[in-house]
Amino acid sequence: MASFLITGASRGFGLALVKELASLPPSKVSNIIAASRSQSTALDELIKSDTTNRIEQVRLDVTNRDSIATAAAEVEAKLGDKGLDVLINNAGVLEYSFGGTSSMENLESSFAVNVLGVHHVTQSFFPLLIKGNLKKVANISTTLGSIAVAPSFAAMPAPAYKIIKAAMNALTVQWALDHEKDGFTFVALCPGWMKTELGGGDMADLTPEQGAKASLDIIFNKSQAEVNGKMAKVFVEGLDKPAEGRLNVYDGSDAPW
Amino acid sequence: MASFLITGASRGFGLALVKELASLPPSKVSNIIAASRSQSTALDELIKSDTTNRIEQVRLDVTNRDSIATAAAEVEAKLGDKGLDVLINNAGVLEYSFGGTSSMENLESSFAVNVLGVHHVTQSFFPLLIKGNLKKVANISTTLGSIAVAPSFAAMPAPAYKIIKAAMNALTVQWALDHEKDGFTFVALCPGWMKTELGGGDMADLTPEQGAKASLDIIFNKSQAEVNGKMAKVFVEGLDKPAEGRLNVYDGSDAPW
Ligand SMILES: NC(=O)c1ccc[n+]([C@@H]2O[C@H](COP(=O)([O-])OP(=O)(O)OC[C@H]3O[C@@H](n4cnc5c(N)ncnc54)[C@H](OP(=O)(O)O)[C@@H]3O)[C@@H](O)[C@H]2O)c1
Ligand SMILES: NC(=O)c1ccc[n+]([C@@H]2O[C@H](COP(=O)([O-])OP(=O)(O)OC[C@H]3O[C@@H](n4cnc5c(N)ncnc54)[C@H](OP(=O)(O)O)[C@@H]3O)[C@@H](O)[C@H]2O)c1
Repeated sequence: MASFLITGASRGFGLALVKELASLPPSKVSNIIAASRSQSTALDELIKSDTTNRIEQVRLDVTNRDSIATAAAEVEAKLGDKGLDVLINNAGVLEYSFGGTSSMENLESSFAVNVLGVHHVTQSFFPLLIKGNLKKVANISTTLGSIAVAPSFAAMPAPAYKIIKAAMNALTVQWALDHEKDGFTFVALCPGWMKTELGGGDMADLTPEQGAKASLDIIFNKSQAEVNGKMAKVFVEGLDKPAEGRLNVYDGSDAPW
Repeated sequence: MASFLITGASRGFGLALVKELASLPPSKVSNIIAASRSQSTALDELIKSDTTNRIEQVRLDVTNRDSIATAAAEVEAKLGDKGLDVLINNAGVLEYSFGGTSSMENLESSFAVNVLGVHHVTQSFFPLLIKGNLKKVANISTTLGSIAVAPSFAAMPAPAYKIIKAAMNALTVQWALDHEKDGFTFVALCPGWMKTELGGGDMADLTPEQGAKASLDIIFNKSQAEVNGKMAKVFVEGLDKPAEGRLNVYDGSDAPW
C-alpha cells in the first residue's frame, strides 16, 4: 500500500501515470496525489471517474518555491504520519533552438524547470519521504540527456534540453549517493519516446500509457541495488531488440551517462 | 602564431595559464588577453614584467552580459580581422554544501558562473573565433563533473559543483557537435587537482604551473579528432600511473561522462 505524488499531472506522461496508478488495486496504491500547475479538464475527469477516490489534486508550479511549500504542507495534512512513499518528478519542458548552440537562449529557463524544479520539490517533500516506507524518488529523464550518446541525437535541435537533462541526471546521482544509507532510491527514469505534446506526437514509439506501465514496473519492482543512482530505461515487450527505423531499444538496461 | 583569451585570469589556474603563455616565443603566441573580473596585483605585475608586451587586460564578469559584450568589442578592436584563435573558459566557482543535497542552496549561483557564464562568453566571442585560424575552445572541467565516477568522490561535500560541471561538460559536447564541420574544437579540459584557492591548497597534486603547462600541451598538440567533444585529462610525467594515496591519474586519457 503505497502513496504517490506526481508533478506535471495535467497532461501527457504525468496524467498517464495517474491513470495507470488508479487502475491498480487499493491494496497496492493507497493515495495518488496529482500535482499540477494548471487546471486540467482531463485530470478533473479522471478524478471524477475514479470510484475508489484515491486521486487528489494539489496545485504545484515547480519553479515557485512558495507554491512548492504550500503543496508540501497540503500533502502533509493529507498523508500525516504515514508520509509519502514515492515522489515522481515528472514536470518538464523541452525547448528548441533551431539555430543551434550559438543562438541558444533557453538554457536558463530549461534549468529552472528541469533541474531547480526537481531539486526544490525533492527538498520540500523530503521530510515526508523520510516518514514513508518505500523512500523512492523517480526523476523523469531521457536518453537525450546521455552525454555519451549525444552524437546519435545531434540532429535534434534541442541542445538546452539535452544539457539540462544531463544536469538533472547528475543531480539525481548526488541525491542517490547522499541518501542510499537511509534506505532511499533515487533513479533517473527514462520512460521512452512517447506520443505527448512534448514528445512531438505520432512519430514517437510509445503511447503515454505504455510508458507509464513500463515506468511503474521499474518503480515497483527494481531494488535499490539495481537502480539507485542509475539512468534506468524501461522494458517494453516487442520493442526490446534493435529495429530498422527505430533509434531506441526498450530492453530495460541502464543508459550510459 | 596564435592569440589567446583566458577568463578568470586574476589568480589561480587562469593566472598560471597567462604566465605560461607569456613564456612561450612570440612566434607561437602572438596575443594573450587576460580577462579578469577584478583588479589583481599579481596580474598587473605579470603584465609589467612581460618584456614582449603581449599580455593585455580586459575586464570581464562572466555573469554579466553587458560586461561580456563590452569585453568582446574591446578584444575585436585589438585583434581585428585576425580574430581570436583560442578561448579558454576558465572562470569558475566551487561552492560547498556541508549538509549535502537536502540543504544544497547554491545550484543556481554555481550554474550562473560555470554554465551560463561559459555559454554567454562563448556566444559573444564566437564571431571572433570564426575569424581566427585555430578555432579552439577549452572549457575548464574536472573529473568531479564526471557522473560515471561520482561514487569515488562522494566524500567531497560540493554537490552543486559536481552537478554543474557535468552540465558544463554536456554544454561543451553540444557546441562540439554543432561546429565540428566548421573546423572547431571544443574540449572539456581537466587540468588536474591544483594548489589554488579553489583547489584547496597544499593537499592538491599539482602546482597551477604544472596544470597550465600540461593543459597547453593538449590545446597546442591534440587534434580535433582526438579531443573535440571529449573530457580530456592532462598528462603529467611521473604522475601517469595510479599511486597509493592519490585519487587522480594524469595519463592524458579521456574521462568518462
Ligand atoms: N514525451 C516523451 O517522449 C518523453 C521522453 C522522455 C522523457 N520525457 C519527460 O517526461 C516528462 C513529461 O513529459 P510529457 O511528454 O508528458 O510532456 P507534456 O505533455 O508537455 O507535459 C509536461 C507537463 O509538465 C508540466 N509543467 C511544465 N512546467 C511546469 C512547471 N513550472 N510547474 C509544474 N508543472 C509544469 C506541464 O504542466 P502544464 O499543463 O501546466 O503546462 C505538463 O503537465 C518531462 O520531464 C519530459 O522531459 C518525455
Ligand atoms: N584548482 C583545481 O584543483 C581545479 C581542478 C579542476 C578544475 N578547476 C577549474 O579551473 C578553473 C579555475 O580554478 P582555480 O583553481 O584557478 O580557482 P580560483 O583560484 O578560485 O580562481 C577562480 C577564478 O575565476 C574567477 N571568477 C569567478 N567568478 C567569476 C565571474 N563571475 N566572472 C569572471 N571571473 C570569475 C575568479 O576571479 P576573481 O579573482 O574576480 O574572483 C578567479 O580568477 C575553474 O573553472 C575550476 O573549476 C580547478
